[in-house]
Amino acid sequence: MPTLPTFEDVAAAAQRLAGQAHRTPVLRSRTADQMLGAEVFFKCENLQRAGAFKFRGAFNALSRFDAAQRRAGVVAFSSGNHAQAIALAGRVLGIPAAILMPHDAPRSKVAATQGYGAEVIRFDRYREDREAIALRLAQDRGLTLVPPYDHPDVIAGQGTATLELIEEVGALDDLFVCLGGGGLLSGAALATRALALGCRIHGVEPEAGNDAQQSIARGEIVHIETPQTIADGAQTQHLGRLTFEIIRRDVADIVTATDAQLVQAMRFFFERMKLVVEPTGCLGFAGACHAGLPLAGRRVGVLISGGNVDLQRFAELTA
Amino acid sequence: MPTLPTFEDVAAAAQRLAGQAHRTPVLRSRTADQMLGAEVFFKCENLQRAGAFKFRGAFNALSRFDAAQRRAGVVAFSSGNHAQAIALAGRVLGIPAAILMPHDAPRSKVAATQGYGAEVIRFDRYREDREAIALRLAQDRGLTLVPPYDHPDVIAGQGTATLELIEEVGALDDLFVCLGGGGLLSGAALATRALALGCRIHGVEPEAGNDAQQSIARGEIVHIETPQTIADGAQTQHLGRLTFEIIRRDVADIVTATDAQLVQAMRFFFERMKLVVEPTGCLGFAGACHAGLPLAGRRVGVLISGGNVDLQRFAELTA
Repeated sequence: MPTLPTFEDVAAAAQRLAGQAHRTPVLRSRTADQMLGAEVFFKCENLQRAGAFKFRGAFNALSRFDAAQRRAGVVAFSSGNHAQAIALAGRVLGIPAAILMPHDAPRSKVAATQGYGAEVIRFDRYREDREAIALRLAQDRGLTLVPPYDHPDVIAGQGTATLELIEEVGALDDLFVCLGGGGLLSGAALATRALALGCRIHGVEPEAGNDAQQSIARGEIVHIETPQTIADGAQTQHLGRLTFEIIRRDVADIVTATDAQLVQAMRFFFERMKLVVEPTGCLGFAGACHAGLPLAGRRVGVLISGGNVDLQRFAELTA
Repeated sequence: MPTLPTFEDVAAAAQRLAGQAHRTPVLRSRTADQMLGAEVFFKCENLQRAGAFKFRGAFNALSRFDAAQRRAGVVAFSSGNHAQAIALAGRVLGIPAAILMPHDAPRSKVAATQGYGAEVIRFDRYREDREAIALRLAQDRGLTLVPPYDHPDVIAGQGTATLELIEEVGALDDLFVCLGGGGLLSGAALATRALALGCRIHGVEPEAGNDAQQSIARGEIVHIETPQTIADGAQTQHLGRLTFEIIRRDVADIVTATDAQLVQAMRFFFERMKLVVEPTGCLGFAGACHAGLPLAGRRVGVLISGGNVDLQRFAELTA
């Protein structure tokens, strides 16, 4: 079994990120409190730099590069937010970045990645193996691959979102976390087991791609076809080795949300909280609302993972 | 001349609002910094309770009612956000509220006002005099009228938004404030003259309804027809007696923004900052971007006044 990152890694990441990542606000909504009969605390990573929590892990990973790695550059593959995060972190740290992005990635995410000065290389996510392409690029050019979730520095960086949440609002009874490859969820687990041990952590993945739920049930990592869901940030085919181990050790349960439930949450965030949240970023709240878990009278944290969605796409989805 | 509220009134309002109003976040955007060549600080009153800064003034005013006033109730007229604010403050304080709203007020604002338990009375804003109707209701039912801007307690309450902004980020060189009747701008002036005396305050009103600009130029309150603009919260016909006096004493200048500039700002807030901002709430930033004022190298505050816009309306405006 690989060596898992720990809370100390999360705390060290928080030091590196100070002054680089936004300390995003924690927002409340009395309507959400009433809906769940609970006290709900939304950690707004849609308001993070580059529009998603991914900047935390990317910056933490890149800031640990040695001089040779920094000169040669970084390569990453991503459906979007990790790409933007690596591109931005690379620019901040002066590290060249090459990013593999699927042909059907949201236009805004491709444009933003290029806007941060990264080289974007497109591929077909339904036919090509992005990991193989990335590894070949890494070898050919001497680049360091930073995977989107299954990396100790990435997981530790993502954990700082939950660290900040608990520092700000105190202990929680439940925490709902968007789940694709499990980076955010694993980081949340590391922070929570050190700071709020009694907290029940719930991973929420798209119903169309419940590989994590299957993996926990079977006790091994289950691979699935690329799921067809509007949650483009959670179209992962499998957990990582690290994220699987942390999740099965620390996470209370994995629940799912339908695309319709995600759209309903997008509308809620827009109309009631004045926030733009991308479909993937709605997984946590959708799970809290619809999974039927007992939340009455409890203190409930919800991680909003990102807000990178085209205005036109947003309008179409919520029309 | 009427007695003007002072900074002490703003400070007292801040005490009353503690724990009742949200202390809204101040957000940054490196893109905005680059656009203006400045350090820009956005005070996000779209994330305030009931979706706009208006809750501050409404709650402050209602919390000063005596026992008889509380029993009889409050009446207010508003194109929307003041209505919701009075309705919500009334519910929080146990004071019945009757609200006059125009027939063409945004659907979401009417629904929200009713949702807070207020009685909504509709009128035609192009044909009927809302102040006369409100005064008659006040007399007939013994209600206390709380006007949307020209009231010392309302102005003092609105000033707490700027008080919080300066407390959080320190002194500013410039402050851009949305301008309809002048409540938010007057409150900003009271806070700024006490806390950041060198700060230049800029009021921004719709180009289609530049009554404040005309009023300052002429040295007297100018009345105009209800302006046709998408900034429905700034369709006021004239400044108030109090707001006029404070604005002409303390405000550096009044600039205007076109509807097209407001739409551009709405898109910016959505795409780059993941915030839902209503057209009126975009006045401040639109003025900062387009009025041609010298901002390079300066510390610039921008008040975002509110985020109450229907999703469908938002999509139509930004399509």
